[in-house]
Amino acid sequence: MSILLKNISAILPDGDSLCVKTTNIGVKDDTIAFIGDIPADFTAEKVIDGSDKLVTPGLVNAHTHSYMSFMRNCADDLSFMDWLFGRIDPIEQKMTDEDAYWGANLAILEMMKSGTTCFNDMQMNIMQTTRAVKESGMRAVISRGLVGSGDDEAGRTRIAQAFEEKEAFKDCSRLSFLLGPHAPYTCDEAFLKIVAATAKEHDMGIHMHLSESVTEIENCQKDYGCSPIALAERAGLFERPFIAAHCVQVSDEDIAILAKHNVSVVTNPASNMKLGNGFAPVKKFLDAGINVALGTDGAASNNSLNMVHEMSLLSLIHKGTGKTPQCVSAIDTLKAATIGGARGIGLGDITGSIEVGKKADLTIFNMHTPSMWPLSNPIAALSYSANGSEVETVIIDGVITMENREVKTMDEERILFETKKIMDRIEASLK
Amino acid sequence: MSILLKNISAILPDGDSLCVKTTNIGVKDDTIAFIGDIPADFTAEKVIDGSDKLVTPGLVNAHTHSYMSFMRNCADDLSFMDWLFGRIDPIEQKMTDEDAYWGANLAILEMMKSGTTCFNDMQMNIMQTTRAVKESGMRAVISRGLVGSGDDEAGRTRIAQAFEEKEAFKDCSRLSFLLGPHAPYTCDEAFLKIVAATAKEHDMGIHMHLSESVTEIENCQKDYGCSPIALAERAGLFERPFIAAHCVQVSDEDIAILAKHNVSVVTNPASNMKLGNGFAPVKKFLDAGINVALGTDGAASNNSLNMVHEMSLLSLIHKGTGKTPQCVSAIDTLKAATIGGARGIGLGDITGSIEVGKKADLTIFNMHTPSMWPLSNPIAALSYSANGSEVETVIIDGVITMENREVKTMDEERILFETKKIMDRIEASLK
Repeated sequence: MSILLKNISAILPDGDSLCVKTTNIGVKDDTIAFIGDIPADFTAEKVIDGSDKLVTPGLVNAHTHSYMSFMRNCADDLSFMDWLFGRIDPIEQKMTDEDAYWGANLAILEMMKSGTTCFNDMQMNIMQTTRAVKESGMRAVISRGLVGSGDDEAGRTRIAQAFEEKEAFKDCSRLSFLLGPHAPYTCDEAFLKIVAATAKEHDMGIHMHLSESVTEIENCQKDYGCSPIALAERAGLFERPFIAAHCVQVSDEDIAILAKHNVSVVTNPASNMKLGNGFAPVKKFLDAGINVALGTDGAASNNSLNMVHEMSLLSLIHKGTGKTPQCVSAIDTLKAATIGGARGIGLGDITGSIEVGKKADLTIFNMHTPSMWPLSNPIAALSYSANGSEVETVIIDGVITMENREVKTMDEERILFETKKIMDRIEASLK
Repeated sequence: MSILLKNISAILPDGDSLCVKTTNIGVKDDTIAFIGDIPADFTAEKVIDGSDKLVTPGLVNAHTHSYMSFMRNCADDLSFMDWLFGRIDPIEQKMTDEDAYWGANLAILEMMKSGTTCFNDMQMNIMQTTRAVKESGMRAVISRGLVGSGDDEAGRTRIAQAFEEKEAFKDCSRLSFLLGPHAPYTCDEAFLKIVAATAKEHDMGIHMHLSESVTEIENCQKDYGCSPIALAERAGLFERPFIAAHCVQVSDEDIAILAKHNVSVVTNPASNMKLGNGFAPVKKFLDAGINVALGTDGAASNNSLNMVHEMSLLSLIHKGTGKTPQCVSAIDTLKAATIGGARGIGLGDITGSIEVGKKADLTIFNMHTPSMWPLSNPIAALSYSANGSEVETVIIDGVITMENREVKTMDEERILFETKKIMDRIEASLK
């Protein structure tokens, strides 16, 4: 299909920064065909009038667990142990593959409605999130969560499952795969070395939780005599393209290691605050030249998958901790939510910015609304004023998946019906 | 008019806490007439079906500067001095009374659309916010911002203007008034004593900025040898009902003074972070039994007047600073955004909770939406998942001011048109 976004304010790359320019954008099939003057031979099957609209690169949610979204608001204001062992674990024990599928659908629906066009998922039920992604028109990177030890057959089985899943969905160009060793406290060093060797053999990147909580750091020091980040380096994981989720509890030495190996960090402000872990040193990451991405984490620890809300948190909290209004600008934030995420998950050449030749992953905001008005600075408006409900139309891989807030590729009512039924069933069985 | 909210989930008082209960709520004229069984003699002119809806007390924005909303996103990521003297001050110099009126209208429109039914405003252009409040159906408490010194005639003139405004709007029951000495750095001690005496003479409460920034504390120590809070106590201001905005930089001694005098604190998380001032010690306030309210501050330093967004910040940031998921619960937050605010501005008997005999100030959320789903815990959903766009219908003083997101008491298009014109004119004149 060919689409013309006519006379629209657009967020475009400007060297290493971003700028706003009113222009025309043409989409041909799955690709951004032109930006600027409309070529004489371009015929649009669909024209979107750009008045009072802003088009941004589709947002990239660089760390989440989509299947968990039916657990939203079921475990709040609890200690970490009560949260995990009192609520989340028992619910996960009752969860079927079909539940994970509907959970992923709910997550994708919420993300699409708040402007996300690509997400990086760590999940445990293989073939489920992938299935929902394929059907919904969303773009995603999937990591089957790997836990295990070097002498444990189950860990190797899980790695094999990751490849099984990769193979099963090789016909869907919107899906790609990373290896997902879960965390230093669920994988031992020998297992991490197996993962590193497997990633090298198959030319794959790696997605892992690192340095999230003080407890994790203390246990890693006790078990290995080093920080989780130093352990990951030692296991050879950083020899692959690597995206590290959280990185809240990091030393300057850790930051130097991350920078040296071009590791991307995905920061998850809401989750890190909500679980009492604190604030990642994002300013230091940026100063060290580390690629910073932004993610929501799962709905059980946020409890939202709204990247626009997450952008607002990223922009604000570091000004509070850094005691200066100039710490983590609106441009830094928007980059983290778009190109930073795309680069972190190995899709920097495919998505994350509005450039000719890239896939047409585009989010169109309606700016003609009191909360965004007047339009003095659209990039500031995205970080400081938007709440995600301004997202009006979403294009993924050249397909209009949402138009005027109606998701065209998913059955919204069915998804709400099924996820309520799941949670009702699980809660009843836990009584 | 009589309205029936039928079979609706409602946030009701539960001792000192809040609970959720499915019930019926009847509104007769401006008042909540019953909660529970529908009296035989009650005839509803309007019935609202409560399926998948949640009704909360109308949100109370306990500290803002409504006229500033046309300055939204015009001065971001700047140092405080560049923000104030480079942008905000020059714009204010060019502002007319009519501009302040349209700015207040934009603010009220945004607040109503995100569930606020009452706000506490400090403003400089008398008769303008008041006029917009009266016309729009909103409830508000107005403080004419007072700056001056003991030997300065202008300060006395400003106090007189506050009474002029109070007198002019005495026929509007939705308006009430506080005296508003601006801050310790714009009022000297002699002037603060005059304000305290005037408040006593006229039986009025006081609304003031206190202990917002490190610079304010340092200057106060230099000029008066004490903290801003100790200065306010010394000037006799705390002998009146008092709501203190910000209170970011406070010592344990300051907290003891606030608690001793039953001073209410209104915390403004977004503004305090955005301007680099940090985080107010809200947990300590709660532990000391201080009444905590929540406010957005003005749109020039937030840049949103969305109280639902502000609730999310309040719930999250103190878990981050306090390093525990149990710091400032979803219930603490919802109380601050409703009854805490109402009490702080002297309207605790009028609004801020759903109780028979109180004014019918009600906010109805549509919960049948992916981002709030499933509905495991509606109070957690308000703090952690909502973004304000779920607000569907708003009732203020028994009048449906917004229905299905259409504001019925204001001309939305006209307000957007006028505020854009203002900002275009001012920006052109500053070039």
